[in-house]
Amino acid sequence: MRILLTNDDGYFAPGLQTLYRVLAQETGYELWIVAPEGQRSATGHSITLFEPLFAAEHFLEGAGQGYAVRGTPSDCVKLAIQGELVPQPDLVISGINRGPNLGTDVFYSGTVSAAMEGVLLGIPALAVSLADFSYQEFEPAAYYIADLLKNESWDYGTGLLNINIPPLPKEQWQGEKLTRLGKAVYQNVFESRIDPHGRKYFWQAGTLMPDELADTDLKAIQDGFVTLTPMHSDLTDYARLKQMQPNNKILDK
Amino acid sequence: MRILLTNDDGYFAPGLQTLYRVLAQETGYELWIVAPEGQRSATGHSITLFEPLFAAEHFLEGAGQGYAVRGTPSDCVKLAIQGELVPQPDLVISGINRGPNLGTDVFYSGTVSAAMEGVLLGIPALAVSLADFSYQEFEPAAYYIADLLKNESWDYGTGLLNINIPPLPKEQWQGEKLTRLGKAVYQNVFESRIDPHGRKYFWQAGTLMPDELADTDLKAIQDGFVTLTPMHSDLTDYARLKQMQPNNKILDK
Repeated sequence: MRILLTNDDGYFAPGLQTLYRVLAQETGYELWIVAPEGQRSATGHSITLFEPLFAAEHFLEGAGQGYAVRGTPSDCVKLAIQGELVPQPDLVISGINRGPNLGTDVFYSGTVSAAMEGVLLGIPALAVSLADFSYQEFEPAAYYIADLLKNESWDYGTGLLNINIPPLPKEQWQGEKLTRLGKAVYQNVFESRIDPHGRKYFWQAGTLMPDELADTDLKAIQDGFVTLTPMHSDLTDYARLKQMQPNNKILDK
Repeated sequence: MRILLTNDDGYFAPGLQTLYRVLAQETGYELWIVAPEGQRSATGHSITLFEPLFAAEHFLEGAGQGYAVRGTPSDCVKLAIQGELVPQPDLVISGINRGPNLGTDVFYSGTVSAAMEGVLLGIPALAVSLADFSYQEFEPAAYYIADLLKNESWDYGTGLLNINIPPLPKEQWQGEKLTRLGKAVYQNVFESRIDPHGRKYFWQAGTLMPDELADTDLKAIQDGFVTLTPMHSDLTDYARLKQMQPNNKILDK
Protein backbone atom coordinates (compact mmCIF):
# COMPACT_ATOMS: atom_id res chain seq x y z
CA MET A 1 0.00 0.00 0.00
CA ARG A 2 1.14 3.50 -0.88
CA ILE A 3 -0.07 6.46 1.20
CA LEU A 4 0.02 10.14 0.40
CA LEU A 5 0.29 12.26 3.55
CA THR A 6 -0.70 15.90 3.62
CA ASN A 7 -2.06 18.52 6.03
CA ASP A 8 -2.83 22.22 6.39
CA ASP A 9 -0.39 23.05 9.19
CA GLY A 10 2.63 22.72 6.91
CA TYR A 11 5.20 20.07 5.94
CA PHE A 12 7.19 20.34 9.16
CA ALA A 13 4.26 20.52 11.58
CA PRO A 14 4.58 18.04 14.48
CA GLY A 15 1.23 16.36 13.72
CA LEU A 16 2.26 15.32 10.22
CA GLN A 17 5.85 14.50 11.15
CA THR A 18 4.72 12.31 14.06
CA LEU A 19 2.22 10.47 11.86
CA TYR A 20 4.91 9.94 9.23
CA ARG A 21 7.40 8.58 11.76
CA VAL A 22 4.91 6.23 13.44
CA LEU A 23 3.54 4.88 10.13
CA ALA A 24 7.11 4.35 8.87
CA GLN A 25 7.96 2.41 12.06
CA GLU A 26 4.74 0.44 12.46
CA THR A 27 3.74 -0.40 8.86
CA GLY A 28 5.50 -1.51 5.70
CA TYR A 29 3.62 1.02 3.58
CA GLU A 30 5.27 3.30 1.06
CA LEU A 31 4.84 6.85 2.34
CA TRP A 32 4.99 10.16 0.50
CA ILE A 33 4.41 13.62 1.90
CA VAL A 34 3.12 16.45 -0.28
CA ALA A 35 2.13 19.30 2.02
CA PRO A 36 2.08 23.09 2.13
CA GLU A 37 5.42 24.68 3.00
CA GLY A 38 3.79 26.64 5.84
CA GLN A 39 0.61 27.18 7.85
CA ARG A 40 -2.53 27.08 5.68
CA SER A 41 -5.30 26.52 8.23
CA ALA A 42 -8.89 27.58 7.44
CA THR A 43 -8.13 27.72 3.72
CA GLY A 44 -11.10 25.46 3.00
CA HIS A 45 -11.03 23.91 -0.44
CA SER A 46 -9.26 26.84 -2.10
CA ILE A 47 -6.92 26.15 -5.01
CA THR A 48 -4.30 28.27 -6.74
CA LEU A 49 -5.20 29.13 -10.33
CA PHE A 50 -3.72 32.60 -10.82
CA GLU A 51 -0.22 32.06 -9.45
CA PRO A 52 2.42 29.45 -10.25
CA LEU A 53 2.94 26.55 -7.85
CA PHE A 54 6.43 25.64 -6.69
CA ALA A 55 7.21 22.25 -5.14
CA ALA A 56 10.46 21.82 -3.18
CA GLU A 57 11.72 18.26 -2.87
CA HIS A 58 12.50 16.95 0.62
CA PHE A 59 14.24 13.75 1.61
CA LEU A 60 13.70 12.96 5.25
CA GLU A 61 15.99 10.92 7.43
CA GLY A 62 14.66 7.37 7.49
CA ALA A 63 12.06 6.25 4.96
CA GLY A 64 10.08 8.03 2.27
CA GLN A 65 10.30 11.39 0.57
CA GLY A 66 8.12 14.29 -0.35
CA TYR A 67 7.51 17.81 -1.54
CA ALA A 68 6.73 21.07 0.24
CA VAL A 69 4.39 23.10 -1.98
CA ARG A 70 3.85 26.85 -1.96
CA GLY A 71 0.10 26.37 -2.21
CA THR A 72 -3.02 25.21 -0.41
CA PRO A 73 -3.73 21.70 0.98
CA SER A 74 -5.99 20.95 -2.01
CA ASP A 75 -3.26 22.16 -4.40
CA CYS A 76 -0.92 19.64 -2.75
CA VAL A 77 -3.24 16.68 -3.34
CA LYS A 78 -4.06 17.75 -6.89
CA LEU A 79 -0.40 18.31 -7.72
CA ALA A 80 0.63 15.00 -6.13
CA ILE A 81 -2.00 12.99 -8.02
CA GLN A 82 -2.97 14.89 -11.17
CA GLY A 83 0.47 16.47 -11.55
CA GLU A 84 2.03 13.03 -10.91
CA LEU A 85 4.49 14.49 -8.44
CA VAL A 86 4.48 11.11 -6.66
CA PRO A 87 3.40 7.59 -7.70
CA GLN A 88 -0.40 7.09 -7.56
CA PRO A 89 -1.42 6.54 -3.90
CA ASP A 90 -3.96 3.97 -2.64
CA LEU A 91 -4.97 6.21 0.25
CA VAL A 92 -4.69 9.88 1.21
CA ILE A 93 -4.26 10.82 4.87
CA SER A 94 -4.57 14.46 5.82
CA GLY A 95 -3.29 15.36 9.27
CA ILE A 96 -2.74 14.96 12.10
CA ASN A 97 -4.23 18.41 12.38
CA ARG A 98 -3.60 20.63 15.36
CA GLY A 99 -7.18 21.43 16.43
CA PRO A 100 -10.64 19.98 15.79
CA ASN A 101 -12.38 19.55 12.43
CA LEU A 102 -15.94 18.82 13.44
CA GLY A 103 -19.48 19.48 12.26
CA THR A 104 -20.13 22.20 9.71
CA ASP A 105 -16.65 23.57 10.41
CA VAL A 106 -15.36 20.96 7.95
CA PHE A 107 -16.24 23.48 5.21
CA TYR A 108 -13.46 25.80 6.43
CA SER A 109 -10.97 23.02 7.03
CA GLY A 110 -7.90 22.73 4.85
CA THR A 111 -7.30 19.30 6.43
CA VAL A 112 -10.71 17.90 5.49
CA SER A 113 -10.68 19.61 2.08
CA ALA A 114 -7.35 17.99 1.19
CA ALA A 115 -8.83 14.59 2.04
CA MET A 116 -11.96 15.45 0.02
CA GLU A 117 -9.73 16.34 -2.91
CA GLY A 118 -8.37 12.79 -2.77
CA VAL A 119 -11.93 11.45 -2.91
CA LEU A 120 -12.80 13.74 -5.85
CA LEU A 121 -9.81 12.20 -7.65
CA GLY A 122 -10.99 8.67 -6.87
CA ILE A 123 -8.69 7.89 -3.91
CA PRO A 124 -10.18 7.03 -0.49
CA ALA A 125 -9.06 9.37 2.26
CA LEU A 126 -8.81 9.93 5.99
CA ALA A 127 -8.78 13.34 7.65
CA VAL A 128 -7.28 13.14 11.14
CA SER A 129 -7.44 15.86 13.78
CA LEU A 130 -6.41 16.17 17.40
CA ALA A 131 -9.36 18.08 18.75
CA ASP A 132 -7.76 20.90 20.73
CA PHE A 133 -5.30 23.59 19.65
CA SER A 134 -3.49 23.58 22.98
CA TYR A 135 -3.08 19.79 23.24
CA GLN A 136 -0.17 18.50 21.19
CA GLU A 137 0.42 14.87 22.14
CA PHE A 138 0.21 13.51 18.60
CA GLU A 139 1.83 10.13 19.21
CA PRO A 140 -1.19 8.23 20.62
CA ALA A 141 -3.30 9.55 17.72
CA ALA A 142 -0.64 8.41 15.23
CA TYR A 143 -0.55 4.91 16.77
CA TYR A 144 -4.33 4.80 16.60
CA ILE A 145 -4.16 5.50 12.84
CA ALA A 146 -1.46 2.85 12.38
CA ASP A 147 -3.69 0.32 14.20
CA LEU A 148 -6.65 1.34 12.06
CA LEU A 149 -4.69 0.80 8.84
CA LYS A 150 -3.41 -2.61 10.00
CA ASN A 151 -6.89 -3.79 10.99
CA GLU A 152 -7.90 -6.28 8.33
CA SER A 153 -11.63 -5.85 8.84
CA TRP A 154 -11.33 -2.18 7.99
CA ASP A 155 -13.05 -1.20 4.75
CA TYR A 156 -11.84 2.13 3.38
CA GLY A 157 -14.61 2.27 0.80
CA THR A 158 -14.21 5.05 -1.71
CA GLY A 159 -15.13 7.99 0.48
CA LEU A 160 -13.73 10.15 3.18
CA LEU A 161 -13.55 9.24 6.83
CA ASN A 162 -13.21 12.23 9.13
CA ILE A 163 -11.51 11.23 12.38
CA ASN A 164 -11.19 13.43 15.45
CA ILE A 165 -9.18 12.31 18.46
CA PRO A 166 -10.08 13.62 21.92
CA PRO A 167 -7.43 15.86 23.51
CA LEU A 168 -6.84 13.48 26.37
CA PRO A 169 -4.27 10.87 27.41
CA LYS A 170 -5.16 7.61 25.65
CA GLU A 171 -6.28 5.85 28.83
CA GLN A 172 -8.99 8.50 29.16
CA TRP A 173 -10.42 7.96 25.67
CA GLN A 174 -13.96 6.63 26.10
CA GLY A 175 -13.88 4.50 22.91
CA GLU A 176 -14.90 5.15 19.31
CA LYS A 177 -18.18 6.52 18.01
CA LEU A 178 -19.58 6.52 14.50
CA THR A 179 -21.10 9.96 14.18
CA ARG A 180 -22.74 12.41 11.83
CA LEU A 181 -21.50 15.95 11.35
CA GLY A 182 -23.07 18.32 13.85
CA LYS A 183 -23.83 21.98 13.47
CA ALA A 184 -20.99 24.15 14.75
CA VAL A 185 -22.49 27.30 16.26
CA TYR A 186 -20.25 30.10 17.49
CA GLN A 187 -20.88 33.11 19.68
CA ASN A 188 -19.02 36.43 19.65
CA VAL A 189 -17.37 35.63 16.33
CA PHE A 190 -15.99 39.10 15.58
CA GLU A 191 -14.08 41.38 17.88
CA SER A 192 -13.75 44.91 16.55
CA ARG A 193 -10.68 47.03 17.34
CA ILE A 194 -9.15 50.35 16.26
CA ASP A 195 -5.68 50.30 14.70
CA PRO A 196 -2.96 52.91 15.52
CA HIS A 197 -4.10 54.89 12.43
CA GLY A 198 -7.67 55.15 13.74
CA ARG A 199 -9.13 52.57 11.36
CA LYS A 200 -11.63 49.99 12.59
CA TYR A 201 -10.80 46.35 11.97
CA PHE A 202 -12.12 42.94 12.99
CA TRP A 203 -10.63 39.76 14.39
CA GLN A 204 -12.52 36.55 13.63
CA ALA A 205 -12.55 33.96 16.42
CA GLY A 206 -15.57 33.17 18.62
CA THR A 207 -16.60 30.52 21.12
CA LEU A 208 -18.00 27.17 19.99
CA MET A 209 -21.30 26.40 21.72
CA PRO A 210 -21.76 22.90 23.21
CA ASP A 211 -23.76 20.47 21.04
CA GLU A 212 -26.26 18.34 22.95
CA LEU A 213 -27.42 16.15 20.05
CA ALA A 214 -26.35 12.63 20.92
CA ASP A 215 -25.29 11.33 17.50
CA THR A 216 -23.04 14.18 16.36
CA ASP A 217 -19.27 14.35 16.24
CA LEU A 218 -19.38 17.59 18.25
CA LYS A 219 -21.13 15.86 21.15
CA ALA A 220 -19.06 12.66 21.03
CA ILE A 221 -15.75 14.51 21.19
CA GLN A 222 -16.99 16.51 24.21
CA ASP A 223 -17.70 13.13 25.83
CA GLY A 224 -14.15 11.91 25.18
CA PHE A 225 -14.75 9.59 22.21
CA VAL A 226 -12.74 9.16 19.04
CA THR A 227 -15.22 10.22 16.34
CA LEU A 228 -15.42 8.50 12.96
CA THR A 229 -17.62 10.35 10.48
CA PRO A 230 -18.04 9.07 6.91
CA MET A 231 -18.39 11.92 4.43
CA HIS A 232 -19.29 12.07 0.74
CA SER A 233 -18.72 14.62 -1.98
CA ASP A 234 -22.28 15.26 -3.22
CA LEU A 235 -23.79 18.51 -1.97
CA THR A 236 -26.99 18.09 -4.02
CA ASP A 237 -30.11 18.35 -1.84
CA TYR A 238 -32.08 15.45 -3.35
CA ALA A 239 -35.09 15.84 -1.05
CA ARG A 240 -35.54 19.45 -2.11
CA LEU A 241 -34.85 18.59 -5.76
CA LYS A 242 -37.81 16.18 -5.62
CA GLN A 243 -40.08 18.72 -3.91
CA MET A 244 -39.23 21.48 -6.37
CA GLN A 245 -39.90 19.45 -9.49
CA PRO A 246 -43.42 20.60 -10.41
CA ASN A 247 -43.15 24.26 -9.40
CA ASN A 248 -41.08 27.34 -9.79
CA LYS A 249 -40.98 27.59 -13.55
CA ILE A 250 -40.07 31.10 -14.60
CA LEU A 251 -39.27 30.58 -18.24
CA ASP A 252 -41.97 29.12 -20.49
CA LYS A 253 -39.93 27.34 -23.13
CA MET B 1 -37.26 42.02 1.79
CA ARG B 2 -33.61 42.74 2.51
CA ILE B 3 -30.92 41.13 0.35
CA LEU B 4 -27.19 40.81 1.00
CA LEU B 5 -25.21 40.71 -2.25
CA THR B 6 -21.71 39.30 -2.41
CA ASN B 7 -19.38 37.56 -4.86
CA ASP B 8 -15.82 36.33 -5.35
CA ASP B 9 -14.82 38.55 -8.27
CA GLY B 10 -14.70 41.68 -6.11
CA TYR B 11 -16.98 44.57 -5.17
CA PHE B 12 -16.61 46.39 -8.47
CA ALA B 13 -16.90 43.36 -10.78
CA PRO B 14 -19.45 43.89 -13.58
CA GLY B 15 -21.47 40.78 -12.62
CA LEU B 16 -22.21 42.07 -9.12
CA GLN B 17 -22.65 45.68 -10.17
CA THR B 18 -25.10 44.71 -12.93
CA LEU B 19 -27.12 42.54 -10.57
CA TYR B 20 -27.21 45.36 -8.03
CA ARG B 21 -28.39 47.91 -10.61
CA VAL B 22 -31.09 45.65 -12.07
CA LEU B 23 -32.43 44.58 -8.67
CA ALA B 24 -32.50 48.23 -7.54
CA GLN B 25 -34.46 49.18 -10.68
CA GLU B 26 -36.79 46.18 -10.84
CA THR B 27 -37.58 45.43 -7.21
CA GLY B 28 -38.33 47.41 -4.09
CA TYR B 29 -35.96 45.34 -1.98
CA GLU B 30 -33.40 46.80 0.38
CA LEU B 31 -29.98 45.90 -1.02
CA TRP B 32 -26.61 45.74 0.69
CA ILE B 33 -23.31 44.71 -0.83
CA VAL B 34 -20.56 43.18 1.29
CA ALA B 35 -17.95 41.76 -1.07
CA PRO B 36 -14.18 41.26 -1.33
CA GLU B 37 -12.25 44.36 -2.41
CA GLY B 38 -10.63 42.39 -5.23
CA GLN B 39 -10.58 39.11 -7.13
CA ARG B 40 -10.93 36.08 -4.82
CA SER B 41 -11.91 33.30 -7.22
CA ALA B 42 -11.25 29.64 -6.35
CA THR B 43 -10.86 30.52 -2.66
CA GLY B 44 -13.43 27.87 -1.75
CA HIS B 45 -14.79 28.25 1.77
CA SER B 46 -11.61 29.72 3.23
CA ILE B 47 -11.90 32.23 6.07
CA THR B 48 -9.41 34.65 7.60
CA LEU B 49 -8.50 33.78 11.19
CA PHE B 50 -4.88 34.86 11.49
CA GLU B 51 -5.06 38.35 9.98
CA PRO B 52 -7.32 41.30 10.77
CA LEU B 53 -10.24 42.07 8.46
CA PHE B 54 -10.77 45.61 7.19
CA ALA B 55 -14.11 46.72 5.75
CA ALA B 56 -14.23 49.92 3.66
CA GLU B 57 -17.63 51.61 3.42
CA HIS B 58 -18.97 52.38 -0.04
CA PHE B 59 -21.98 54.48 -0.98
CA LEU B 60 -23.00 53.90 -4.58
CA GLU B 61 -24.85 56.33 -6.78
CA GLY B 62 -28.53 55.35 -6.65
CA ALA B 63 -29.82 53.01 -3.96
CA GLY B 64 -28.18 51.01 -1.22
CA GLN B 65 -24.76 50.89 0.32
CA GLY B 66 -22.10 48.41 1.23
CA TYR B 67 -18.63 47.41 2.31
CA ALA B 68 -15.58 46.16 0.43
CA VAL B 69 -13.73 43.71 2.67
CA ARG B 70 -10.08 42.72 2.54
CA GLY B 71 -10.98 39.07 2.96
CA THR B 72 -12.58 36.05 1.33
CA PRO B 73 -16.20 35.72 0.13
CA SER B 74 -17.08 33.68 3.22
CA ASP B 75 -15.46 36.31 5.45
CA CYS B 76 -17.75 38.88 3.81
CA VAL B 77 -20.93 36.94 4.61
CA LYS B 78 -19.80 36.14 8.15
CA LEU B 79 -18.79 39.73 8.81
CA ALA B 80 -22.03 41.08 7.30
CA ILE B 81 -24.25 38.78 9.38
CA GLN B 82 -22.33 37.72 12.49
CA GLY B 83 -20.35 40.96 12.66
CA GLU B 84 -23.60 42.89 12.09
CA LEU B 85 -21.98 45.08 9.47
CA VAL B 86 -25.41 45.40 7.81
CA PRO B 87 -28.99 44.76 9.04
CA GLN B 88 -29.94 41.06 9.09
CA PRO B 89 -30.77 39.98 5.50
CA ASP B 90 -33.65 37.71 4.44
CA LEU B 91 -31.68 36.33 1.51
CA VAL B 92 -28.04 36.13 0.40
CA ILE B 93 -27.23 36.32 -3.31
CA SER B 94 -23.69 35.55 -4.39
CA GLY B 95 -22.78 36.58 -7.94
CA ILE B 96 -23.26 37.06 -10.75
CA ASN B 97 -20.02 35.17 -11.11
CA ARG B 98 -17.87 35.41 -14.20
CA GLY B 99 -17.55 31.73 -15.15
CA PRO B 100 -19.37 28.50 -14.29
CA ASN B 101 -19.84 26.94 -10.85
CA LEU B 102 -21.02 23.46 -11.69
CA GLY B 103 -20.73 19.91 -10.39
CA THR B 104 -18.00 19.04 -7.91
CA ASP B 105 -16.26 22.31 -8.81
CA VAL B 106 -18.59 24.00 -6.31
CA PHE B 107 -16.08 22.92 -3.63
CA TYR B 108 -13.52 25.36 -5.07
CA SER B 109 -16.00 28.13 -5.66
CA GLY B 110 -15.84 31.32 -3.62
CA THR B 111 -19.24 32.24 -5.07
CA VAL B 112 -20.99 29.06 -3.92
CA SER B 113 -19.14 29.02 -0.59
CA ALA B 114 -20.32 32.56 0.21
CA ALA B 115 -23.90 31.44 -0.45
CA MET B 116 -23.32 28.33 1.67
CA GLU B 117 -22.05 30.55 4.48
CA GLY B 118 -25.44 32.30 4.41
CA VAL B 119 -27.16 28.92 4.77
CA LEU B 120 -24.87 27.91 7.64
CA LEU B 121 -25.97 31.12 9.38
CA GLY B 122 -29.64 30.34 8.79
CA ILE B 123 -30.28 32.60 5.76
CA PRO B 124 -31.46 31.09 2.44
CA ALA B 125 -29.12 31.84 -0.44
CA LEU B 126 -28.70 31.88 -4.20
CA ALA B 127 -25.38 31.43 -5.99
CA VAL B 128 -25.55 32.81 -9.54
CA SER B 129 -22.99 32.23 -12.27
CA LEU B 130 -22.71 33.08 -15.95
CA ALA B 131 -21.22 29.86 -17.25
CA ASP B 132 -18.32 31.04 -19.41
CA PHE B 133 -15.31 33.21 -18.54
CA SER B 134 -15.26 34.88 -21.94
CA TYR B 135 -18.99 35.73 -22.07
CA GLN B 136 -19.83 38.85 -20.09
CA GLU B 137 -23.42 39.83 -20.91
CA PHE B 138 -24.63 39.93 -17.32
CA GLU B 139 -27.82 41.91 -17.86
CA PRO B 140 -30.15 39.09 -19.06
CA ALA B 141 -28.94 36.96 -16.14
CA ALA B 142 -29.64 39.82 -13.73
CA TYR B 143 -33.17 40.27 -15.11
CA TYR B 144 -33.72 36.52 -14.78
CA ILE B 145 -32.84 36.75 -11.07
CA ALA B 146 -35.14 39.78 -10.63
CA ASP B 147 -37.99 37.78 -12.23
CA LEU B 148 -37.22 34.80 -10.02
CA LEU B 149 -37.39 36.95 -6.87
CA LYS B 150 -40.66 38.57 -7.94
CA ASN B 151 -42.30 35.22 -8.75
CA GLU B 152 -44.74 34.60 -5.93
CA SER B 153 -44.78 30.83 -6.33
CA TRP B 154 -41.06 30.73 -5.63
CA ASP B 155 -40.17 29.02 -2.37
CA TYR B 156 -36.66 29.88 -1.17
CA GLY B 157 -36.74 27.22 1.49
CA THR B 158 -33.85 27.36 3.90
CA GLY B 159 -31.12 26.03 1.66
CA LEU B 160 -28.91 27.06 -1.19
CA LEU B 161 -29.97 27.21 -4.81
CA ASN B 162 -27.05 27.12 -7.23
CA ILE B 163 -28.01 28.81 -10.51
CA ASN B 164 -25.90 28.72 -13.67
CA ILE B 165 -26.91 30.75 -16.73
CA PRO B 166 -25.87 29.56 -20.20
CA PRO B 167 -23.40 31.88 -21.98
CA LEU B 168 -25.82 32.63 -24.78
CA PRO B 169 -28.16 35.46 -25.82
CA LYS B 170 -31.42 35.03 -23.88
CA GLU B 171 -33.44 33.98 -26.95
CA GLN B 172 -31.14 30.97 -27.27
CA TRP B 173 -31.69 29.76 -23.69
CA GLN B 174 -33.43 26.40 -23.92
CA GLY B 175 -35.42 26.85 -20.67
CA GLU B 176 -34.73 25.89 -17.05
CA LYS B 177 -33.70 22.53 -15.66
CA LEU B 178 -33.71 21.28 -12.09
CA THR B 179 -30.45 19.36 -11.85
CA ARG B 180 -28.12 17.53 -9.52
CA LEU B 181 -24.43 18.37 -9.23
CA GLY B 182 -22.38 16.43 -11.77
CA LYS B 183 -18.80 15.26 -11.48
CA ALA B 184 -16.38 17.78 -12.96
CA VAL B 185 -13.50 15.84 -14.53
CA TYR B 186 -10.51 17.69 -15.96
CA GLN B 187 -7.68 16.61 -18.24
CA ASN B 188 -4.17 18.05 -18.43
CA VAL B 189 -4.64 19.92 -15.16
CA PHE B 190 -1.00 20.90 -14.59
CA GLU B 191 1.39 22.44 -17.05
CA SER B 192 5.00 22.40 -15.87
CA ARG B 193 7.43 25.15 -16.89
CA ILE B 194 10.93 26.31 -16.00
CA ASP B 195 11.37 29.83 -14.60
CA PRO B 196 14.25 32.17 -15.63
CA HIS B 197 16.20 30.91 -12.57
CA GLY B 198 15.99 27.30 -13.75
CA ARG B 199 13.37 26.27 -11.19
CA LYS B 200 10.46 24.05 -12.20
CA TYR B 201 6.96 25.33 -11.48
CA PHE B 202 3.38 24.40 -12.30
CA TRP B 203 0.34 26.19 -13.64
CA GLN B 204 -3.04 24.75 -12.69
CA ALA B 205 -5.74 24.91 -15.37
CA GLY B 206 -6.96 21.92 -17.42
CA THR B 207 -9.81 21.11 -19.78
CA LEU B 208 -13.26 20.16 -18.44
CA MET B 209 -14.48 16.92 -19.99
CA PRO B 210 -18.07 16.83 -21.31
CA ASP B 211 -20.63 15.22 -18.98
CA GLU B 212 -23.11 12.89 -20.70
CA LEU B 213 -25.29 12.13 -17.66
CA ALA B 214 -28.72 13.55 -18.44
CA ASP B 215 -29.74 14.91 -15.01
CA THR B 216 -26.59 16.86 -14.10
CA ASP B 217 -25.97 20.59 -14.16
CA LEU B 218 -22.86 20.03 -16.28
CA LYS B 219 -24.91 18.38 -19.04
CA ALA B 220 -27.84 20.81 -18.89
CA ILE B 221 -25.61 23.86 -19.26
CA GLN B 222 -23.92 22.29 -22.29
CA ASP B 223 -27.42 21.93 -23.75
CA GLY B 224 -28.20 25.62 -23.22
CA PHE B 225 -30.43 25.41 -20.13
CA VAL B 226 -30.48 27.58 -17.03
CA THR B 227 -29.60 25.09 -14.27
CA LEU B 228 -31.19 25.21 -10.82
CA THR B 229 -29.49 22.91 -8.31
CA PRO B 230 -30.65 22.79 -4.69
CA MET B 231 -27.77 22.19 -2.30
CA HIS B 232 -27.56 21.42 1.40
CA SER B 233 -24.85 21.78 4.00
CA ASP B 234 -24.58 18.23 5.37
CA LEU B 235 -21.59 16.30 4.04
CA THR B 236 -22.30 13.26 6.27
CA ASP B 237 -22.50 10.05 4.21
CA TYR B 238 -25.53 8.50 5.92
CA ALA B 239 -25.59 5.37 3.74
CA ARG B 240 -22.03 4.56 4.68
CA LEU B 241 -22.65 5.46 8.33
CA LYS B 242 -25.39 2.80 8.42
CA GLN B 243 -23.20 0.19 6.72
CA MET B 244 -20.28 0.80 9.04
CA GLN B 245 -22.24 0.50 12.25
CA PRO B 246 -21.49 -3.11 13.27
CA ASN B 247 -17.86 -3.34 12.07
CA ASN B 248 -14.52 -1.66 12.27
CA LYS B 249 -14.10 -1.46 16.00
CA ILE B 250 -10.48 -0.91 16.88
CA LEU B 251 -10.75 0.05 20.50
CA ASP B 252 -12.40 -2.33 22.92
CA LYS B 253 -13.84 0.03 25.47
